[in-house]
Amino acid sequence: MDSRRNFLKKASLLAGAAVVSGNAGSISKFAVNRMNTEKLKLSFRPYTLELKHVFTLANSSRTTTPVMLTEIQYGDLVGYGEASMPPYLGESHETASTFLAKVDLSQFNDPFKLEEIIDYIDTIDAGNYAAKASVDIALHDLVGKLIGQPWYKIWGYDSEKTPFTSFTIGIDTPDVVKTKVKEAAEYKILKVKLGRDTDKEMIETIRSVTDVPICVDVNQGWKDKHFALDMIHWLKEKGIVFIEQPMDKTKLDDNAWLTQNSPLPTIGDEAVQGLKDVIKAHGIYSGINIKLMKCGGMRNANKMIALADSLGLKVMVGCMTETSCAISAAAHLTPKALWADLDGALLISNDLYNGTKIVDGKVSISRLPGIGIEKI
Amino acid sequence: MDSRRNFLKKASLLAGAAVVSGNAGSISKFAVNRMNTEKLKLSFRPYTLELKHVFTLANSSRTTTPVMLTEIQYGDLVGYGEASMPPYLGESHETASTFLAKVDLSQFNDPFKLEEIIDYIDTIDAGNYAAKASVDIALHDLVGKLIGQPWYKIWGYDSEKTPFTSFTIGIDTPDVVKTKVKEAAEYKILKVKLGRDTDKEMIETIRSVTDVPICVDVNQGWKDKHFALDMIHWLKEKGIVFIEQPMDKTKLDDNAWLTQNSPLPTIGDEAVQGLKDVIKAHGIYSGINIKLMKCGGMRNANKMIALADSLGLKVMVGCMTETSCAISAAAHLTPKALWADLDGALLISNDLYNGTKIVDGKVSISRLPGIGIEKI
Repeated sequence: MDSRRNFLKKASLLAGAAVVSGNAGSISKFAVNRMNTEKLKLSFRPYTLELKHVFTLANSSRTTTPVMLTEIQYGDLVGYGEASMPPYLGESHETASTFLAKVDLSQFNDPFKLEEIIDYIDTIDAGNYAAKASVDIALHDLVGKLIGQPWYKIWGYDSEKTPFTSFTIGIDTPDVVKTKVKEAAEYKILKVKLGRDTDKEMIETIRSVTDVPICVDVNQGWKDKHFALDMIHWLKEKGIVFIEQPMDKTKLDDNAWLTQNSPLPTIGDEAVQGLKDVIKAHGIYSGINIKLMKCGGMRNANKMIALADSLGLKVMVGCMTETSCAISAAAHLTPKALWADLDGALLISNDLYNGTKIVDGKVSISRLPGIGIEKI
Repeated sequence: MDSRRNFLKKASLLAGAAVVSGNAGSISKFAVNRMNTEKLKLSFRPYTLELKHVFTLANSSRTTTPVMLTEIQYGDLVGYGEASMPPYLGESHETASTFLAKVDLSQFNDPFKLEEIIDYIDTIDAGNYAAKASVDIALHDLVGKLIGQPWYKIWGYDSEKTPFTSFTIGIDTPDVVKTKVKEAAEYKILKVKLGRDTDKEMIETIRSVTDVPICVDVNQGWKDKHFALDMIHWLKEKGIVFIEQPMDKTKLDDNAWLTQNSPLPTIGDEAVQGLKDVIKAHGIYSGINIKLMKCGGMRNANKMIALADSLGLKVMVGCMTETSCAISAAAHLTPKALWADLDGALLISNDLYNGTKIVDGKVSISRLPGIGIEKI
């Protein structure tokens, strides 16, 4: 298909666009007709991510992650989306299938009405944020393709301003940890999950091999604020960058006290689900960890960034274990983030897409339109 | 120029867009070269709006408004912007000329980096919000034209969900007011400026002619909170919709008390300049009046809407006396506003652009790309 035919196909899906002005009145009429008859069609299928290494958190470990893959078809274009559902968050293939089966996109014939469609998705049921994100991401991919631009450009962000991503070193025996750290030499920031009795040993083991900055994620694991502050002082001397979710998210006063006294920034993660939680995090944490699977997708995530900016909260963009679909979607936000933790697709052995890559440790956003992915 | 040539011209200004994929390798290379050499060029000129009627506020009246018209050229495309500078806000042809002369856009060769460019504009000098808005609007017009879409679509808003605009009835003798109200029969909501001894007479005069809802703007004119509350109870019986800036913006406790006790929503206007003021308005007013000339342009205004949404603040989009340039720019925000006050271009006799219209009292957003205007 030559570029003119590509252009006409694209123009036929755009209403009132400048490209059909001039003497192309017949194209313009065709575009209007097409707009009135095309409907959005959602499809989805379960998929299971295979992790390269056993993934160990403070309270669990696993070797797979269930995801749901979505597609939204509109004319000849398809938008891709994904829901990643680590079991501890309560979603599963079953809950996502049930939710997505209720989503009736056939009532919409204009994908550009993102606000209206996403408002509708949100009202179908409470929770189900990963499932909601899988629709939101597919819609953004579709609209970006209709516009012919990647989302970082549509949002006005500079793709050169992306941060390094952290790379997670799972909890393991000292020898295995040392091996993993050496294998991760490409990454400029490491991340470790603490909140166990072996916290100091874990850090010392990594420091015996490398001097790169380390992000610490406690996953609510520290029980006492004075213990937490002592640990943070110790960690600061070890070149740690920030402390994510140090204590139970419900302990507002303790987390606020810790943030006020901490020599390192604190980041709210479990405490910050969606848009309304950003304001609640103000005064409790130094920053927030925004994840598409928590907040319901790209649109809410981008609003959370504007809100965090206006409140002086630092922004980190995180992920679950995900294919390059959801990782690429999240990458468009990272020019506005101080830190990124987008190693999710690096940790799996059965990715399905090419998209945003990590190049020399830095998030390198795909320049393709939409979220910027192609099937492998 | 046929549509294919239009397309090629457009494609040459887009970097990495899908439309140049396929077998159009030579176009793609040309696009990259073009991107590296094209610079953004800003030009500006003063202009004076002639008002159809004398415009009377609580403390002043006038027959003209100084504006600054901006253009940003990029290759063969031009984006249009405008600064409207009612004298009581402190900007003028002189201040805007001084500010705009400092703006060096030649350092940027990619208009898509809106966040970076607008951050730069903001750091040039404090204040100068109308002058800043004139650059922001021209940039948005340019980028929308490059994308080939109007901003309401890029933002994901539904152009059918625009509100009616209010139409301002200036303070005058009862006979003149009655005539003005009859002439304004097309508009579904009227707006009056109160805060004088003649407030009740003004409302009674309008009610002797029409039953349409009325918005009240006090412009900080009421001095006592109990008097204000009594007035609001009286106004509620007269079919008033909301009360804008009832008292001095610095009287936080009094305005908060009034909002808590008022049977009508209160709207912060003078109290709400930009993004950081939205959070301050929370708990003090029921809603906020967002104006491009106060907050520095479309990008900040759209972020303010996301913020207001998350705080449960009602949104109104207002204007100064402006040509259809700045009015059209503001119109793209109105699908997310409960109320619009975009009569600015209706009040002048020497508009320069065709763009967003008021049709049967409702904001009818132009579907042209960018802000959607053409020179008359």
